[in-house]
Amino acid sequence: MFEGLNTPRLVLDADRVERNAARMRVRCGELGVTLRPHVKTAKSTDVARIAADGEQGPITVSTLAEAEHFAAAGWRDILYTTAIAPAKLARADRIQREHGARLLFVLDDREAAAMIGKEAAALGACFGILIEVDCGEHRSGVEPESEELLAIADTIGACAPHLELMGVMSHAGHSYAFDDRAAIAALAEVERHAAVASAELLRSRGYPCPIVSVGSTPTALFADHLSGVTEVRAGIYLFWDLAQLSRGICAQDDLAVSVLATVIGHQRHGPSLILDAGALALSKDVGANRFMPEAGYGLVCDADTLAPYGTLAVTVVHQEHGNVPVPDESWFARLPIGSVVRILPNHACLTCAAYVSYDVLRAGEAVGQWPRTGGW
Amino acid sequence: MFEGLNTPRLVLDADRVERNAARMRVRCGELGVTLRPHVKTAKSTDVARIAADGEQGPITVSTLAEAEHFAAAGWRDILYTTAIAPAKLARADRIQREHGARLLFVLDDREAAAMIGKEAAALGACFGILIEVDCGEHRSGVEPESEELLAIADTIGACAPHLELMGVMSHAGHSYAFDDRAAIAALAEVERHAAVASAELLRSRGYPCPIVSVGSTPTALFADHLSGVTEVRAGIYLFWDLAQLSRGICAQDDLAVSVLATVIGHQRHGPSLILDAGALALSKDVGANRFMPEAGYGLVCDADTLAPYGTLAVTVVHQEHGNVPVPDESWFARLPIGSVVRILPNHACLTCAAYVSYDVLRAGEAVGQWPRTGGW
Repeated sequence: MFEGLNTPRLVLDADRVERNAARMRVRCGELGVTLRPHVKTAKSTDVARIAADGEQGPITVSTLAEAEHFAAAGWRDILYTTAIAPAKLARADRIQREHGARLLFVLDDREAAAMIGKEAAALGACFGILIEVDCGEHRSGVEPESEELLAIADTIGACAPHLELMGVMSHAGHSYAFDDRAAIAALAEVERHAAVASAELLRSRGYPCPIVSVGSTPTALFADHLSGVTEVRAGIYLFWDLAQLSRGICAQDDLAVSVLATVIGHQRHGPSLILDAGALALSKDVGANRFMPEAGYGLVCDADTLAPYGTLAVTVVHQEHGNVPVPDESWFARLPIGSVVRILPNHACLTCAAYVSYDVLRAGEAVGQWPRTGGW
Repeated sequence: MFEGLNTPRLVLDADRVERNAARMRVRCGELGVTLRPHVKTAKSTDVARIAADGEQGPITVSTLAEAEHFAAAGWRDILYTTAIAPAKLARADRIQREHGARLLFVLDDREAAAMIGKEAAALGACFGILIEVDCGEHRSGVEPESEELLAIADTIGACAPHLELMGVMSHAGHSYAFDDRAAIAALAEVERHAAVASAELLRSRGYPCPIVSVGSTPTALFADHLSGVTEVRAGIYLFWDLAQLSRGICAQDDLAVSVLATVIGHQRHGPSLILDAGALALSKDVGANRFMPEAGYGLVCDADTLAPYGTLAVTVVHQEHGNVPVPDESWFARLPIGSVVRILPNHACLTCAAYVSYDVLRAGEAVGQWPRTGGW
């Protein structure tokens, strides 16, 4: 099916994406929360539509480039979860005005809140704000239920109408460090409680906090309940990857993206296959290898069926070369120079970022291309 | 100088590039070889012109996208050093015909040579070929002076006029594993000898081999001599990076590219600064850390002077967040939220690949943007 194509290229199984998307929608329905898909993995309006069953509902973005791309395509409710800097507000203001979108920012610092408020006032803009609370990852966020939380809320309140406190968010990014469902469920409860208790405290001070946002794909899947939460952010569930598979969070036939590569050499030292997919085509992320050391930079699969060739993996990457050790030279006849394989990526978010489009499969047949956005 | 700009962005000091370029031109002049710059690092016609002192001389590329980009911009002598696959020939043929460029391919397999010859004949095309010899890295290439080398040459010869054997190439990629000049000089001699002896053998069988191509920046710099070699391929010398600095191959004020990032948070756990430059803005390559463990994903520097803040480095990356541990919270006042820093990348080739353009500095002042190409 893939003969004659320029490689490397990114292949997306749209049927798998639809199945993955439907499962998370059902799950969020059971939890009684709104799903706000994170589009930093897919960076695709086509995929975001599948996530929301054809709608243009709330989304989460990681860059203003994504915010701009999705706002231009009609999305209206956009949460940007990388803390905003004052110099970025003018562009954010243009995105809101030109496209009629509403941007929500996260903040975790009272001085930053004051700067953002001042800049928003200078622009004559109005932005919604969620205060980020740290539920233990210590990447960003303030202590839940803390004095600093209240100080930030008061600073935001003083910047009305240019800033509007819409609620709180937390992110249990450290849930990706576990492969144990009970441990993930426990973190989900910490994440939930940090957000809900902080929202309750703010409400007791007169801030309504209509949004209580939590998320990470693992905690969304394994939380015992999300009482008090209003929305869940998750992204990788749409595609999955070896990092998630290695943690037992998805099944192998859920994996929806792969890299099509060509065998360009047979190295008798090793022996190994040389592919035209290296560090740029796959990324150098090896996060899956903690629980799946054999993942390398990606598992090598039959191009048509996406069935792995045992544990064949790309174990060494140069900029454009990927090296795949094979048990013996019989593999040279099995995969001659010029033949194609597909590679299941270690970490889909980073692998996909190298590509400007997907080759889309439906019922196993290539049906066209979907564009991706990128950059900042 | 950088206030108010959207970040992250890629900054290029053109004065440093000119100095780096001039030094390698002088070096190749002393060695008596042609310099064929590898443009996979810069992916920029502006930088390639600096490399050749304003000319459009021979270049090396790693993708057909680069070949297409440079051919369209007027380059005529293009060596593509990733082994070619049959399915890519039609595009290569278009690049030659539409732009009047001459593409040189590398091959290291007789069956591949036969397939390439057959496809070239079907296209009515003519391509120059270098046979790749393996000088010890075992990434690709045949044994120097081997029967397989001769068999490939004969296969190429039988495909005339569609394939034309132009010579041999070798690449001591394993030279990047050393920080010892004597060890690199020894590898340079192995690389040189592998190429020259193989060319001599081919000449003894009637193949003229006008091109004997070697390269890697370290071996080009530290070879005792390159007798018998006709050209050197090198790329990273134009920019340098921490991986090269860590091996003592360049000086810190040679480093020509950096990532401009904004402080978007202060994390009291740590304590640490949070930057808006993470895994996508910096890449996850940590090749420098073997000899410079403190390099992390990049060293954090004063935005105006590019002087490092001691050993401050990005030590943890998420997709769009970079975490920079600081000794104490006094750094929060020194680098408040909204301030900018520049980051010296661990491995420039991979970091630059995330960007579509450079912000160019001359005499320390921003003077405009230069586009980059990318993808495949």
